[in-house]
Amino acid sequence: MALSLDIIWIVICGCFVFFMQAGLTCLEVGFIQSKNIIFVSIENLLTFMVTTICFCMAGFPLMFGKTFHGIAGMSLWGLQDITSKNNLGFAFVFIQLMFAGVAVTIFAGAMSERTKIIPLQIAAFISSILIYPVFGHWVWGGNFLKQSTWLQNMGYIDCAGASVVHVTAGFIALAGISVVGGRKKATSGRSNIPIATLGVFILWFGWMGFNGGSTFRFSEEVGLAVLNTNLSAAAGMAGALILNFLMKKNGGYLISLFNGVLGGLVAITAAAFYCTPAAAIEIGFITGIIVDLSRYLLERWKLDDAVNAIPVHLVGGITGCLLLPFFIEQQYLNLPDRISQFGVQIVGIVANFVWVFGLSYIMFSILNRTVGLRVTPEEEEKGLNIVEFEDYYSWEKYLEISGFETEI
Amino acid sequence: MALSLDIIWIVICGCFVFFMQAGLTCLEVGFIQSKNIIFVSIENLLTFMVTTICFCMAGFPLMFGKTFHGIAGMSLWGLQDITSKNNLGFAFVFIQLMFAGVAVTIFAGAMSERTKIIPLQIAAFISSILIYPVFGHWVWGGNFLKQSTWLQNMGYIDCAGASVVHVTAGFIALAGISVVGGRKKATSGRSNIPIATLGVFILWFGWMGFNGGSTFRFSEEVGLAVLNTNLSAAAGMAGALILNFLMKKNGGYLISLFNGVLGGLVAITAAAFYCTPAAAIEIGFITGIIVDLSRYLLERWKLDDAVNAIPVHLVGGITGCLLLPFFIEQQYLNLPDRISQFGVQIVGIVANFVWVFGLSYIMFSILNRTVGLRVTPEEEEKGLNIVEFEDYYSWEKYLEISGFETEI
Amino acid sequence: MALSLDIIWIVICGCFVFFMQAGLTCLEVGFIQSKNIIFVSIENLLTFMVTTICFCMAGFPLMFGKTFHGIAGMSLWGLQDITSKNNLGFAFVFIQLMFAGVAVTIFAGAMSERTKIIPLQIAAFISSILIYPVFGHWVWGGNFLKQSTWLQNMGYIDCAGASVVHVTAGFIALAGISVVGGRKKATSGRSNIPIATLGVFILWFGWMGFNGGSTFRFSEEVGLAVLNTNLSAAAGMAGALILNFLMKKNGGYLISLFNGVLGGLVAITAAAFYCTPAAAIEIGFITGIIVDLSRYLLERWKLDDAVNAIPVHLVGGITGCLLLPFFIEQQYLNLPDRISQFGVQIVGIVANFVWVFGLSYIMFSILNRTVGLRVTPEEEEKGLNIVEFEDYYSWEKYLEISGFETEI
Repeated sequence: MALSLDIIWIVICGCFVFFMQAGLTCLEVGFIQSKNIIFVSIENLLTFMVTTICFCMAGFPLMFGKTFHGIAGMSLWGLQDITSKNNLGFAFVFIQLMFAGVAVTIFAGAMSERTKIIPLQIAAFISSILIYPVFGHWVWGGNFLKQSTWLQNMGYIDCAGASVVHVTAGFIALAGISVVGGRKKATSGRSNIPIATLGVFILWFGWMGFNGGSTFRFSEEVGLAVLNTNLSAAAGMAGALILNFLMKKNGGYLISLFNGVLGGLVAITAAAFYCTPAAAIEIGFITGIIVDLSRYLLERWKLDDAVNAIPVHLVGGITGCLLLPFFIEQQYLNLPDRISQFGVQIVGIVANFVWVFGLSYIMFSILNRTVGLRVTPEEEEKGLNIVEFEDYYSWEKYLEISGFETEI
Repeated sequence: MALSLDIIWIVICGCFVFFMQAGLTCLEVGFIQSKNIIFVSIENLLTFMVTTICFCMAGFPLMFGKTFHGIAGMSLWGLQDITSKNNLGFAFVFIQLMFAGVAVTIFAGAMSERTKIIPLQIAAFISSILIYPVFGHWVWGGNFLKQSTWLQNMGYIDCAGASVVHVTAGFIALAGISVVGGRKKATSGRSNIPIATLGVFILWFGWMGFNGGSTFRFSEEVGLAVLNTNLSAAAGMAGALILNFLMKKNGGYLISLFNGVLGGLVAITAAAFYCTPAAAIEIGFITGIIVDLSRYLLERWKLDDAVNAIPVHLVGGITGCLLLPFFIEQQYLNLPDRISQFGVQIVGIVANFVWVFGLSYIMFSILNRTVGLRVTPEEEEKGLNIVEFEDYYSWEKYLEISGFETEI
Repeated sequence: MALSLDIIWIVICGCFVFFMQAGLTCLEVGFIQSKNIIFVSIENLLTFMVTTICFCMAGFPLMFGKTFHGIAGMSLWGLQDITSKNNLGFAFVFIQLMFAGVAVTIFAGAMSERTKIIPLQIAAFISSILIYPVFGHWVWGGNFLKQSTWLQNMGYIDCAGASVVHVTAGFIALAGISVVGGRKKATSGRSNIPIATLGVFILWFGWMGFNGGSTFRFSEEVGLAVLNTNLSAAAGMAGALILNFLMKKNGGYLISLFNGVLGGLVAITAAAFYCTPAAAIEIGFITGIIVDLSRYLLERWKLDDAVNAIPVHLVGGITGCLLLPFFIEQQYLNLPDRISQFGVQIVGIVANFVWVFGLSYIMFSILNRTVGLRVTPEEEEKGLNIVEFEDYYSWEKYLEISGFETEI
């Protein structure tokens, strides 16, 4: 009976997390320039296709198979030996696939508007069968088969994937934009804010499943987890808003709001089950401020992120993992005191940086020298809708049909 | 075990109700003029932020804390003393937050296109910590701690919030538009009907959770509740459509359809668990007619509601509460006969009018004389996208970039 | 307790399936020309209204009532005698309504851009009270009351409605476009690919409920069902993509991708609970190829389907039903060997063709000679937004207001 409840809950949470693909697509479509929105939509469909096949066949086994000295899993290839009975079985595979899907979609979004579609798919392939699952094994490797990995042994805590999913996605994105370079005109398109808002609400909705399903079983604390998720999101918005008023620049608080709410959602991911509502508000509020601050730093460092993935997911995720030791309730610490736990959290983030950023940087550098990452300046100017799909966005096409001259 | 089922069901229903934020945003974006759609999107994010923090910290305690003579709750401040175990615990807080969120978002929508963002947020603040929870206490105050309130003692029935959420939102909206006045050109923008349709489907989807979760526990009757929800929605559409054909005016039945389906959903909210499918059809059909009729009255009275919130939520909600005694099954009446029940239902609606409309009218009048509710005529003409966010909606920006002259 | 789990699962799955209405609307809005998108949105709302009332009152009884010699149900009229207790009760009615709603919405989409709204509603009426439920009775008639129908007796397998829902919808669509004829300019509008992509993700999300709820009870295998759903969708995309590269025509793989993913989802519908993940990939991959091939055949035969409903739902559904005997696990066969099962599957598809296509063709022919199916060429040129609703899509209206000349 308990198994049935666990399965029903995890499958529903997995569906919610799947739906975040729709949210990410709306968010990206709303923020980039309209000349690239068809490209980004199709790109997200393609990426999820690659992730689904590759993660199930090879990524999941590497992440949850029988561990090789706590470093990587080495069984369950092609999902063999999994049944519906052993430890949630396919329901567990299902929700893990959805987590992986979110990570891969995020980094592809950050590099959009100037990156070609083929190398992005190759990067999605390598990420879903190697980069993502190995770090995932370190943190969650003992969640399917009963076993330990080196980072779990140290007592590292990441409840729902603030580092496994979001910091990983953020470091791949950072490596990607470092190699591919910025857009010629690094302006946010903001082509459709209502669709971006719809995207935020879809993501927020999906995040209930993301955090609620993160213990990989049903428990009576799920009410707390989803309530904390909301409180942190709202507090993140508040934090970013207040910072924006204090900084008084960058014309309008629109971007701050989006970054704040998403940053708050990312940060609470690490601790949704383990803290009080008041602590969730504090975590969200602090993260909202830091996430919005980091956006100004990225602008200064000329790191051009088309959809603010790095502030939200990388900075938000790191902030969440490092605040956790000081805000969760004492009983949930894996180590005797908060400072030691903080130390272990730093080890986890550093491990993520070394493995994920390091390997991604090598991957993108090789891709850049072989197939090439970047479209030509002319193609970037024309927009990838036309370059890749010979297609215009509706009203541009209409203008043309109607006899208006367009510059495209 | 029963507790687990209750929690799983209430959390999922709460997520569905949360998703109605996305539906309301799409609906409003689709119906108002495109020069205000960015404003409305951001406005909804902000309002939900305010509601989340304020309702959890002070509104919920006022609504469900230990009652002070049946008038208002006076404990649980800051959610203290709540655990995951006592009577659904945080899951209950979670779904109540989502109900409150719906109410606040609705009235802000009705006042859009001419109201400033700061006073709207102040109104959201006061509504979520005072206006909404006190009336809510009268109706549902005994649902968390075992206690009685004056309206519950009289036998008032509102299953899922037709009055607590929808009539309340409607009366706040009515007070708001009375004070702020109509738009200069009171025309429905209808800027994006497909997005509005998406909004209706999202709302309809969310309403399954709204009505299904309204008994705050899982029961085998939830199948009946969601089926009734659908039947009433469809019948509401049918009623509005038939009225429109009989009236033969106002060019096209498009608005009637939207009002009919939403009116049907609001009306059945009062009774979803308590009536047969046939009665659900009757309730929806009658409400569809009345809701669409009320639209013509509002137009005659020059009450300018940008998103038809008042016909749908106020008129639909009152209709639902007053039809209830005659359509639910005998066994669910709280009083010996249907006429007495009808009397009590009227008392509930009058109480809502006195408290909610009265207090809201005072609130908006004070706001109007202090911070000021209304943008300038020039700002209204330019549209609030530009005024508040220095931003154009995509294709308008494109036209400008392309060298077309625009009037904006 | 088991009943509670079944009800909770079926109601949630039903909600997911309901949400596919939003997905279908977005998909259709994205693919047709913008001059018809308001029409299509409203049309979908109307169709679902008709289906809700008619299916519950008369369609469900015909489909699940006490069988008349295994041919049609003949009791439960107006849902009488149904309670929340007998075999899921209203929860079962609820999810069946949602399945019927999907079928009806699909065929209306295929005929859009040139068909009038009144005959479409009459066709929805006849489909939901006669065409759909009678075939449904043959396949699922024993799922509510314990009884047998002729096709169930033969051992026909259709787990979640690949034939009951999708092939039925496809044959009605085929009859409809045969009678109404193609559009004057048979070009895909592709007016809003991002919204179409959102539609695909919503459909995909809803399909988890479609397939997961298809056994009409909760079981621990639901994890397998939803995982298979994803794998088949991804593999369908891959199959269509590879075919497109081999064919090297039709400028761009965009349509192929959409058809591939949706075809993969339709095909696995027949077998989601009964096959291994590897088999799900194979079914999806083969179907993706066949679905995309069929699109070229339809173009050659001048069968003009505005939203690719026939390749996806008809061809995808038939492919799924016929591949099933060779890909599901031995234990799930209803007949001793795979070839016999294949024979029965063919009988089922032929029965669907004879009943559904035959009756639909007669229905549309009569409609064509009486009320008339088709708008005038001038109306088709102007677009049905203006013809039916005197309305323009946002930016066209804006252009007009701004003083730009438009050709519409």
